[in-house]
Amino acid sequence: MPRRLDEFEIIARHFKPLAAKCEGAMGLSDDAAALRVGAGRELVVTADALVEGVHFLSNDPPDLIARKMLRVNLSDLAAKGATPTVYLMTLALGPAVDESWIASFANGLAKDQDEFGVSLAGGDTTATPGPTTLSVTAMGEVAQGRTLRRGGARDGDGIWVSGTIGDGALGLAAARGESLGLDADAERLLADRYRLPRPRVTLGPRLVGVAHAAMDVSDGLVGDLRHICDASGLGAEIEAARVPLSAAARVVLMHAPERLRDILTGGDDYEILFTAPVSQDGALTALAKETGTALTHIGTMVAGGGVTVRDAAGRALETGHGGYRHFGAPTIR
Amino acid sequence: MPRRLDEFEIIARHFKPLAAKCEGAMGLSDDAAALRVGAGRELVVTADALVEGVHFLSNDPPDLIARKMLRVNLSDLAAKGATPTVYLMTLALGPAVDESWIASFANGLAKDQDEFGVSLAGGDTTATPGPTTLSVTAMGEVAQGRTLRRGGARDGDGIWVSGTIGDGALGLAAARGESLGLDADAERLLADRYRLPRPRVTLGPRLVGVAHAAMDVSDGLVGDLRHICDASGLGAEIEAARVPLSAAARVVLMHAPERLRDILTGGDDYEILFTAPVSQDGALTALAKETGTALTHIGTMVAGGGVTVRDAAGRALETGHGGYRHFGAPTIR
Repeated sequence: MPRRLDEFEIIARHFKPLAAKCEGAMGLSDDAAALRVGAGRELVVTADALVEGVHFLSNDPPDLIARKMLRVNLSDLAAKGATPTVYLMTLALGPAVDESWIASFANGLAKDQDEFGVSLAGGDTTATPGPTTLSVTAMGEVAQGRTLRRGGARDGDGIWVSGTIGDGALGLAAARGESLGLDADAERLLADRYRLPRPRVTLGPRLVGVAHAAMDVSDGLVGDLRHICDASGLGAEIEAARVPLSAAARVVLMHAPERLRDILTGGDDYEILFTAPVSQDGALTALAKETGTALTHIGTMVAGGGVTVRDAAGRALETGHGGYRHFGAPTIR
Repeated sequence: MPRRLDEFEIIARHFKPLAAKCEGAMGLSDDAAALRVGAGRELVVTADALVEGVHFLSNDPPDLIARKMLRVNLSDLAAKGATPTVYLMTLALGPAVDESWIASFANGLAKDQDEFGVSLAGGDTTATPGPTTLSVTAMGEVAQGRTLRRGGARDGDGIWVSGTIGDGALGLAAARGESLGLDADAERLLADRYRLPRPRVTLGPRLVGVAHAAMDVSDGLVGDLRHICDASGLGAEIEAARVPLSAAARVVLMHAPERLRDILTGGDDYEILFTAPVSQDGALTALAKETGTALTHIGTMVAGGGVTVRDAAGRALETGHGGYRHFGAPTIR
């Protein structure tokens, strides 16, 4: 069994290279990082904790744990209109973590730092007798006063979503070994989509000045739209048939129409859900072309409260009562 | 046994009030906080992880756990010359945490927010089957390019330290029930000093433009001074007799001279260790008066490397070899 590294060796060997491009991180050799924020810009900051056995499994590939951790936070920043810049992380490493785990974890971060143009800026590494527990604080920048919010939607705004919805939930089902009636390749693609989110870091900042409200779809389209409704003091009407689906999801629905509920409420999509005034329809069409990202108009913000989902015939699907909670899911009958 | 709260209730009831004065935190109701950094200022950021059973004990008072967590990070910021502004925290709460624990924890934070003028800006709360694991990311501001560093000390600089050294280490001994030969009140005072650091948030920012290098004394005076030496490419000579001691520490030393080693290497002082050119001696004397903080000149930066500690007769005490490590301690014979 490999010798257990001490904190200094771990940092020097595996994490210092991740901070090489962040001058203010001082090679992780000081107690704090010094960061500049661009003139006329504000800082957008988000934080997440991940626990082994709760948010990831002991035998998940460490590079994927790292990349998902980072991407989920980049997705939050993108949905606020921010361009991600740096992140800090604290690692409480459990007894089973050895150097190969750390090397793979750091390698995953290195890949995504290159892909998304972000850098490690600091953190803390310690040992825990319990499950490995990761915490990340990610930062981005946006023009001052322009951070996109859950609140801010207006009556009559169109409701839009990027990409496709439901692949995260179906991917989780595939990753769990549930049969979706697809061929093995298609199920693996869905599972990959669940395992490795694609945060909309290019699109997000382009929605500043266009969208009135925005958030990323992490807990499910209906539940997250309800958050926008609550924060904006409005209701929302969406049409199930307009919700953009991947080819794989369409095939799944043909065989198992009851999967619609998973698609609309299941989460892990990491697309951007936003509202925009009708006057921006042209700008959004152009933006979709320019960024190569599908943007789909799925409904309208209305007076009142709550989310109404209508089927192809215009009938309201029941989306549950006021008791919606973060870890639950609304009922669609 | 009290009902276990869900994440939303915990945040709404106990943490939202802590973010009331931070406009960009949006009442913790969004996925990210928007923060402004003053014109011409840069952000200083530090992060720490604390694990139950490693950094604090299961039966430690939750308000003290919270306050120590926050203060240790405020101390890091102060030693960088930064004025603390906000913090984010992620909490992975273990099975034994109930609402009274959370209420006490939040109450401790509220007290220290008032005392130090900082605010909660965001974070994440989740459950863990393992030990409670806390992570905090604290931020402060300093004039652009003026963040104080470990590096930057110059040959001939005076070496200074604020307050008194060794009370943290002796306090830990007292908290462990070791007899220090003091009366019960004095031992309790030392233990309190260990349990609740006093970060030098007023002094730190005043050292900008005066000090060449600075850090807080968290791992022990000699070890931390060695970090300044390493980062600055210099050596340091200090006189043991000049190291400022509390009245209690002086009494301990009379009875047990061997405690000098604990005092010089034991850590948990959270004073500021800094170097400054001789030309600043007058400014430092004035600053000590103005801030009501003792500032003591304990030695000189010299060419070479490593820390030499001299006794009253000028003899060098052996401070160990190059093998110094974060979790170890140098030898003083």
